[in-house]
Amino acid sequence: MKLPGQEESDVSSAYENVPTGELDSGPGSRPSPSGSSDTDSRELGVTKDPLLFIQLNELMGWPKALEWRETGRWVLFEEKLEVGAGRWSAPHVPTVALPSLQKLRSLLAEGLVLLDCPARSLLELVEQVTGVESLSPELREHLQSLLLQRPQHLIQGTDTRLCWGSAHPREASHDEEAPLKEQRQNPLRKKLPPGAEVGAVLAGELGFLAQPLGAFVRLRDPVVLGPLTEVSLPSRFFCLLLGPPTLGRSYREMGRAVAILLSDPQFQWSARRASSLHDLLAALDAFLEEVTVLPPGRWDPTARISPPKCLPSQHKRLPLQMQEAKSPSAWRRARFEHRRGHLPHEPSPELQRTGSASQLCSTFIWPPSLTPSLSGGCWEKPPMVLRDYSLDYLPFRLWVGIWVATFCLVLVATEASVLVRYFTRFTEEGFCALISLIFIYDAVSKMLSLTYAYPIQRPGSPAYGCFCQYPDPGGNESQWTRTKPKDRDDILSMDLGLVNASLLPPPECARRGGHPRGPGCHTVPDIAFLSLLLFLTSFFFAVALKHVKTSRFFPSVVRKVLSDFSSVLAILLGCGLDAFLGLATPKLMVPKEFKPTLPGRGWLVSPFGANPWWLSVAAALPALLLSILIFMDQQITAVILNRAEYRLQKGAGFHLDLFCVAVLMLLTSALGLPWYVSATVISLAHMDSLRRESRACALGEPPSFLGIREQRLTGLMVFLLTGISVFLAPVLKFIPMPVLYGIFLYMGVAAISSIQFTKRVQLLLMPAKHQPDLLLLRHVPLSRVHLFTAIQLVCLGLLWIVKSTPAAIIFPIMLLGLVGVRKALEWVFSPQELLWLDELMPEKKSIPEKRLAPEYSFSASDSEDSDLMYQPKAPEINISVN
Amino acid sequence: MKLPGQEESDVSSAYENVPTGELDSGPGSRPSPSGSSDTDSRELGVTKDPLLFIQLNELMGWPKALEWRETGRWVLFEEKLEVGAGRWSAPHVPTVALPSLQKLRSLLAEGLVLLDCPARSLLELVEQVTGVESLSPELREHLQSLLLQRPQHLIQGTDTRLCWGSAHPREASHDEEAPLKEQRQNPLRKKLPPGAEVGAVLAGELGFLAQPLGAFVRLRDPVVLGPLTEVSLPSRFFCLLLGPPTLGRSYREMGRAVAILLSDPQFQWSARRASSLHDLLAALDAFLEEVTVLPPGRWDPTARISPPKCLPSQHKRLPLQMQEAKSPSAWRRARFEHRRGHLPHEPSPELQRTGSASQLCSTFIWPPSLTPSLSGGCWEKPPMVLRDYSLDYLPFRLWVGIWVATFCLVLVATEASVLVRYFTRFTEEGFCALISLIFIYDAVSKMLSLTYAYPIQRPGSPAYGCFCQYPDPGGNESQWTRTKPKDRDDILSMDLGLVNASLLPPPECARRGGHPRGPGCHTVPDIAFLSLLLFLTSFFFAVALKHVKTSRFFPSVVRKVLSDFSSVLAILLGCGLDAFLGLATPKLMVPKEFKPTLPGRGWLVSPFGANPWWLSVAAALPALLLSILIFMDQQITAVILNRAEYRLQKGAGFHLDLFCVAVLMLLTSALGLPWYVSATVISLAHMDSLRRESRACALGEPPSFLGIREQRLTGLMVFLLTGISVFLAPVLKFIPMPVLYGIFLYMGVAAISSIQFTKRVQLLLMPAKHQPDLLLLRHVPLSRVHLFTAIQLVCLGLLWIVKSTPAAIIFPIMLLGLVGVRKALEWVFSPQELLWLDELMPEKKSIPEKRLAPEYSFSASDSEDSDLMYQPKAPEINISVN
Repeated sequence: MKLPGQEESDVSSAYENVPTGELDSGPGSRPSPSGSSDTDSRELGVTKDPLLFIQLNELMGWPKALEWRETGRWVLFEEKLEVGAGRWSAPHVPTVALPSLQKLRSLLAEGLVLLDCPARSLLELVEQVTGVESLSPELREHLQSLLLQRPQHLIQGTDTRLCWGSAHPREASHDEEAPLKEQRQNPLRKKLPPGAEVGAVLAGELGFLAQPLGAFVRLRDPVVLGPLTEVSLPSRFFCLLLGPPTLGRSYREMGRAVAILLSDPQFQWSARRASSLHDLLAALDAFLEEVTVLPPGRWDPTARISPPKCLPSQHKRLPLQMQEAKSPSAWRRARFEHRRGHLPHEPSPELQRTGSASQLCSTFIWPPSLTPSLSGGCWEKPPMVLRDYSLDYLPFRLWVGIWVATFCLVLVATEASVLVRYFTRFTEEGFCALISLIFIYDAVSKMLSLTYAYPIQRPGSPAYGCFCQYPDPGGNESQWTRTKPKDRDDILSMDLGLVNASLLPPPECARRGGHPRGPGCHTVPDIAFLSLLLFLTSFFFAVALKHVKTSRFFPSVVRKVLSDFSSVLAILLGCGLDAFLGLATPKLMVPKEFKPTLPGRGWLVSPFGANPWWLSVAAALPALLLSILIFMDQQITAVILNRAEYRLQKGAGFHLDLFCVAVLMLLTSALGLPWYVSATVISLAHMDSLRRESRACALGEPPSFLGIREQRLTGLMVFLLTGISVFLAPVLKFIPMPVLYGIFLYMGVAAISSIQFTKRVQLLLMPAKHQPDLLLLRHVPLSRVHLFTAIQLVCLGLLWIVKSTPAAIIFPIMLLGLVGVRKALEWVFSPQELLWLDELMPEKKSIPEKRLAPEYSFSASDSEDSDLMYQPKAPEINISVN
Repeated sequence: MKLPGQEESDVSSAYENVPTGELDSGPGSRPSPSGSSDTDSRELGVTKDPLLFIQLNELMGWPKALEWRETGRWVLFEEKLEVGAGRWSAPHVPTVALPSLQKLRSLLAEGLVLLDCPARSLLELVEQVTGVESLSPELREHLQSLLLQRPQHLIQGTDTRLCWGSAHPREASHDEEAPLKEQRQNPLRKKLPPGAEVGAVLAGELGFLAQPLGAFVRLRDPVVLGPLTEVSLPSRFFCLLLGPPTLGRSYREMGRAVAILLSDPQFQWSARRASSLHDLLAALDAFLEEVTVLPPGRWDPTARISPPKCLPSQHKRLPLQMQEAKSPSAWRRARFEHRRGHLPHEPSPELQRTGSASQLCSTFIWPPSLTPSLSGGCWEKPPMVLRDYSLDYLPFRLWVGIWVATFCLVLVATEASVLVRYFTRFTEEGFCALISLIFIYDAVSKMLSLTYAYPIQRPGSPAYGCFCQYPDPGGNESQWTRTKPKDRDDILSMDLGLVNASLLPPPECARRGGHPRGPGCHTVPDIAFLSLLLFLTSFFFAVALKHVKTSRFFPSVVRKVLSDFSSVLAILLGCGLDAFLGLATPKLMVPKEFKPTLPGRGWLVSPFGANPWWLSVAAALPALLLSILIFMDQQITAVILNRAEYRLQKGAGFHLDLFCVAVLMLLTSALGLPWYVSATVISLAHMDSLRRESRACALGEPPSFLGIREQRLTGLMVFLLTGISVFLAPVLKFIPMPVLYGIFLYMGVAAISSIQFTKRVQLLLMPAKHQPDLLLLRHVPLSRVHLFTAIQLVCLGLLWIVKSTPAAIIFPIMLLGLVGVRKALEWVFSPQELLWLDELMPEKKSIPEKRLAPEYSFSASDSEDSDLMYQPKAPEINISVN
């Protein structure tokens, strides 16, 4: 405890425990004390700094019943003890009043600072801290016993069971430094990575002190300080802030200020390396230089700010020594790896692991034969022209396949996949939007076609009459049987004469030898509306279940399962509803035998059949168009999969994949199977289910994307299961078609709503002041954004028209034309605008990249956005169907 | 422009323009300069301070093409110019780096501070500001012409038309001080209240300056500074921050710091009254004392914080003089009134105005006869017991009405309405939840009953057969006519023998003299599912339209109309869908004539009819129960309507309303009309449609609730239109019943989801860490919250059971029992917990209120919440159906 004017002697006392060799050397270059266990890690620089868990123990109950209670804790964000409710608050961004920081600074400057204190237990530490001269012996003893008192911790289990650490005052003894039971059982312990250290802050008002007592201790060797901390981890820092209750709540707030300082990466870095009080104060000043200030009149200081989605990048803030030691990216990577508990070169065990069962199944749910595919849709049915000239379709298709395979192999050999760099987001979004619209259109149109197949019976409509007519014993032929089928519409207004009839339902009637007569016998009522209901149910249920993941309800395991299996559950619900009502809705048609569908053909397609020889050459033309389509489908899928944010980089994979497609093309053509292409939706769903996210993240930190679980097992399993689905026919035939259409609609809607194009289309409907704060809106005038969107809409409309008319054959060329349109856009938009709305085309990229990158080209006043722009983006196109 | 070391002389130069009399007097007591036009307003204290609009003009284009551009503006929140996009950002909480504030402080301390500068034009002002000695004459001239250059403003119309203020350099002349055209057309001008003033901040880097130049000017008489500011309002403050470009962006940031300071109410108050540089710096230091600090490692300083829903209350922050001048509440009220542009005692013109047409109609859409009402449901149908003893219902009902009226009048006479204070939120929520559940249950059960009336036809079901049978000319009676109706189920398996038949649909058949035969003739297919579809459509459509109000799409007028008319539009959509399909769905039954429904009775009910005389006495018992029900219904509705947050205070209204109910009870009983009670749902919907919210609020400020448009016209109109609806029968009969049931469901769901009880029920399903940050969860342990919710659920369950069983007659007493249960809860919960979960019962309220109010009873560390607690709450129970 210091008196004013004692600073000089106190500062020197701060050096008592520091080896003399360290006094003059600056941070980063000073030799570590020999024999210290963390010498190596120190010398390796910041990458080895362990995570710091900070807790604030507050002295409460003055003057009657003094007790320590943990009222705050920090890892990345702050959690506050809600005293009344007995729970920890949600993690939030820590805020503190500026005066608390300033008072803390002056208290530290006057107080005791012990750096590399050799204390090996709480008792030793307390003796050192209370060893200042200004304290009288009895005061010191009183203070020591107070500091050794066991604090109350709120241990909050994951199952919301609460248990308060017992608050019996404990005697100071060495053998109690072992971790306590409640400390070991603390679920927080599991959240902290191995090697984490603790910083303990003790603050409060103590009436019998005449002067404020401030002490900041860095332990040379981190040691478990008995029951002082909530978790039984070794403590590195210890801070004591006590004083008479004249300053109101300021000790508590100063304690929070210390904790916030220690939770700041840069201050912590400096504090770990500080060799003097001066270094520590300099670090505090550096912290103050960088703080953001919220004005009191416009911000309620008691409001809690939720953790931001991405933390600011720290490498800009690193002190010079830190940046010299390691390049920023290496530092960040090392920091990231450390958080995961991996050594830098240790192979990650999860790379070999497969996705969980739920992910496997959710990937599997779509046998490719069910999904409408662009190329499939264009080519699976025999074109009219062939049927008109009575040519054999399958041999022709074989030749098309052979040609396509040839073209694709040529593309592989010439490494044409490098052309993929011309597929900017403009092209990708056009393609993706088109596929999504096809999904949506097909789902809705097939649903509507059901209402034609099962017409709604309006009152007075001719679908009423039905009875069972028996053969007349007296040979008395009724008018019915005399009427020709074409005149049956008139029969309703005609007398049937005398008939021998009953009202048996049609099947029963036929069994008894009668004939069901009348239009009402063949219509099935209620099917149209039930189909519509099933369609809507499965669609909305799938949407709702998908959103369960981000809802507040249920434990996260339940939410994850419900969300991962949303499509499966929606289908099951639809089937259940259908089975419960028991109506004859149209079901999925499943063949009963495993054989070629076309009667009379073998497993292999004959190369010529009834076709003339020249047709095998003529097949090259459609094959060329199809090759473009397959190339684009394949490459755009690959481009989306290889986006930077997925952390996949497979340069040669582009060529290899196309090679596989070519080989498969030959195989499927020869066997007459559906052509096998990389269906964008399925591929993306597969990848999405293999995402790896950090799990043991600090409280409040959003889970960060770690990468894709790369392996070959799930892919193999998916297609094995797809093959096995041949034997699932008895189960699949219970699935009503409207349910499947509903899921198709959901897939299309989910896919189209994930692209930026859709967001821009929505902007068209929003008044300017209600538009969200998108980065592109900050940098591109709204009219230009709308123009870009309008051009995309027009392109999409043209593609749709081409696809729907007899000109569909040139559709692949039109699709390729998107690249040309994008090129032409450079005449309309400035490179700056295109950079924000799209990406740059490769020619531009290579030359003036530096000039065009936003951080260089904007005026200095705008460079604040550059940080935002280079933060890891969320995937732009994220077609997730499961 | 200052050189270091010149402070003393500069500070004195700051006083040049201040009348000597003001130098020593503190703020608040100093005499104003005589002849000043705002003397009176000054002397009245802070209440007259006009709103300040602050704009930052930044000097850009150094060194080539210097120009001023407005890059930021502040009223309550900050709007930043997005230079690239050419638009104003969304308003956000201004944040600034701490060093900018500190640099600003030192620049102000060294710079020129002119308080009460008498300049009357921009030219004079510029001459004064550049009149410092350190500037050479040519530099001064250069600077003057630069300062007189017309700045660029981005004038953003509401229709997103943008127009950049022309940037032609203008000559310095007096006659151009008049407002420019673009300034007058600025839509922002309309948003600012009359009398608003401008603070202009000019900041930037200027290479030819050797030293930083800082000037802070307060004009004695605000004057329009020509084209300097975006709006042609008189400027009060002028701040210039220029300097050599050595400090990077700091001048811009310092300019932002000045603007943020000026936008702070307390700093502005001090700056308006500062009599010296010292006062100004003291105000800045006071600001710094109160700022909240965000740590750099946990918060991205470029992130923008959306405006908070409620601003922190300023009265805690007021300097002492300010608080002495006016009581905080008076100050706030005055501030609020000022913002509305009303003088304190001017009668608000809107008090006499009625709601808009849309509100009227949306209120009217529910003829009370359609809404299931609790008391109505209990009493509208003749009880079984009366029918069993063949007693006349209406005379009995008349007597019950007479008794109820008597009891109600007694209650009025004894002022029993004061008992209403025992209806805490516990009782209100129980009542409200019950009514909502009745709505939901009725809607769903009536919908399901339709599927019994119009059964679904499963395949093979006996509803198939139908034909048209003509009378047999030969007297050959078929088996059909011989069969008794009871045996008709067997007829399906029976031969009908020879019949003379046709397949005409039933109506046509009857017209031709035949008889439709067979079960299929009378079933109407497709109706059940269509009804379900209509039910769901109207429900979801109403929900979706209601949410349009808070969506980003469409202009606010369109959103308001869509949201206000959500029920009407949902009904219209349902009717349209139904008419389009043309099926015979069940429609609303509307009587064709205006006459008593019961045949053979007159308009007046005879007092005895066939009943014995003692029944008129016995009617007192049910009347007693009914009185309790009506009293509770009436009073709870009144309590909800008179909640503090609606700013209605009608003490005597409670009694008066009950008196009206009593009179109406007599009238309706005598006429045999439905009893008329205050239906909670309708009353609340009516009030909700009469909400008055501030419209011309500052950018980013959420609209604040101003009160209810109190008048008698809408009520009158609602019931006039209800009466006229008798003549709307030809229109109403097109409304399908399922559509109405869907709207009932929506009303019930909307009502039940608006009460806190529902939020607490949802908490039961949420894991603790995902729960929202509710205030009650901060102060009450979760297990206690759950216990309270469980008790409410049990009470609700018991009430429901009583209501559904023959014991329904004692239901009113059970409902009253809620008050008793609430009283008993005081044995289970502490007053502290009840204060957060419910309210306090009046006995407790009167005595230890001070001790129990959260700000006193919690430890000092928790008083930070007290601010939150006393902020204007959102209405707790808000049954809004339109």
